[in-house]
Amino acid sequence: MSMLEKMGSYAFVAEPFHVDFTGRLTMGVLGNQLLNAAGFHSTERGFGIAKLNEEDYTWVLSRLAIELEEMPFQYEPYKIDTWVENVYRLFTDRNFAIEGKDGQILGYARSVWAMISTETRKPADLMALHNGEIADYVYDRPCPIEKPSRIKVRSQEAVATYKVKYSDIDINGHLNSVRYIEHILDLFPLELFKEKRVQRFEIAYMAESYFDEQLSFFVDKEADSDNYDVEVRKESGESVCRSRVIFTELKIEN
Amino acid sequence: MSMLEKMGSYAFVAEPFHVDFTGRLTMGVLGNQLLNAAGFHSTERGFGIAKLNEEDYTWVLSRLAIELEEMPFQYEPYKIDTWVENVYRLFTDRNFAIEGKDGQILGYARSVWAMISTETRKPADLMALHNGEIADYVYDRPCPIEKPSRIKVRSQEAVATYKVKYSDIDINGHLNSVRYIEHILDLFPLELFKEKRVQRFEIAYMAESYFDEQLSFFVDKEADSDNYDVEVRKESGESVCRSRVIFTELKIEN
Repeated sequence: MSMLEKMGSYAFVAEPFHVDFTGRLTMGVLGNQLLNAAGFHSTERGFGIAKLNEEDYTWVLSRLAIELEEMPFQYEPYKIDTWVENVYRLFTDRNFAIEGKDGQILGYARSVWAMISTETRKPADLMALHNGEIADYVYDRPCPIEKPSRIKVRSQEAVATYKVKYSDIDINGHLNSVRYIEHILDLFPLELFKEKRVQRFEIAYMAESYFDEQLSFFVDKEADSDNYDVEVRKESGESVCRSRVIFTELKIEN
Repeated sequence: MSMLEKMGSYAFVAEPFHVDFTGRLTMGVLGNQLLNAAGFHSTERGFGIAKLNEEDYTWVLSRLAIELEEMPFQYEPYKIDTWVENVYRLFTDRNFAIEGKDGQILGYARSVWAMISTETRKPADLMALHNGEIADYVYDRPCPIEKPSRIKVRSQEAVATYKVKYSDIDINGHLNSVRYIEHILDLFPLELFKEKRVQRFEIAYMAESYFDEQLSFFVDKEADSDNYDVEVRKESGESVCRSRVIFTELKIEN
């Protein structure tokens, strides 16, 4: 297998309803396209969700970390490269590079996936699938951003609540991974998005949430910075997901 | 100009995060792709928003009506044809046909657009633009669904309220046209989407709403049917948009 085949490369455009008030692609849409790129690439190699479903397995996204210098502007084309960095018995690391309209690197992303049995919902051994063939797809390209971190939120005072709605849920009846990104970014004041931009967005998915469930959002702010740790909890206190959002000063345009 | 050039045709796929819990494409995403198709087609002909902006004009979507036999299923390709049916002095009618994976017609849509001056926000004369060239693009293809209707909502008791969030607003700082579709469909119980499907969705955009504005949703239900008229109002009582949602029994699969 050539190195090129081990990397998938997919082209997108920043559509008008996919940019925020600053005209830049939203983090939610970028997250969606990263997951699409992962889906295209694994499908082309026989490890796509549709194929796995036939064998009663499915992919579950565990963590996602995105770090960017810049977001594509409305109508601009961008490209996502994706490759598998590591395969462990119960997890695989898939990385991404995001390229702008002139081929410049806008940023990188890292994701961690588990495979579970659709019958038992228990983790499955990746090496047992297709005779461990998945390990052949490992590709050695640098991904110069930090790995997803351990996030711990101490706050016990919810800053917002949200009831899961029809438009949030996917074919499995779960609040979809992209909506979490949107709901988390909706916690921040518009002024912050005017003055700064999200440099790094991390999310760890812990449990599924369902239609009509009431979710509460807890936030710890790091002193003297615009770094935030966010936790989404059910009424029972169970953690649904945890996120770290790091804002940075806007680049001065040349 | 050949007839073919007067019609644009664009291919899409029902992505996993763009389908609802039944596995069917959401009305919001279909609405988004109709508007993308309109954007691609008008841009190819020199009437796109980017070009108009240079001349201090922009397109404003006034009405949209979508009527369908069926929605594409997850991962299925679909195609949107679009053409201009009529050009009046202050409005133009743009129609759409939605084709499924086997080329079958899934449904149609109608839209009404005005052009406004970005300086005065007042309607502009379409015939005065590019020497009335826009009228050359009128294409005669049947669009066998009813035109958008006049919607009037009598209810004075809000069924829901919503505060406009960061992820709702577009580059103009307005709650975007697609989000209205989502927020309106979120008013209905999940049981309705389990037992029925949206056969026709209509929306008329009356006024813009902005970040942090509080919106209230009013609904009239037609007796002995699952036809609903919805109005979104500001705290002042001003009408932001009106919508008609017609549910029908699910087709029995063969």
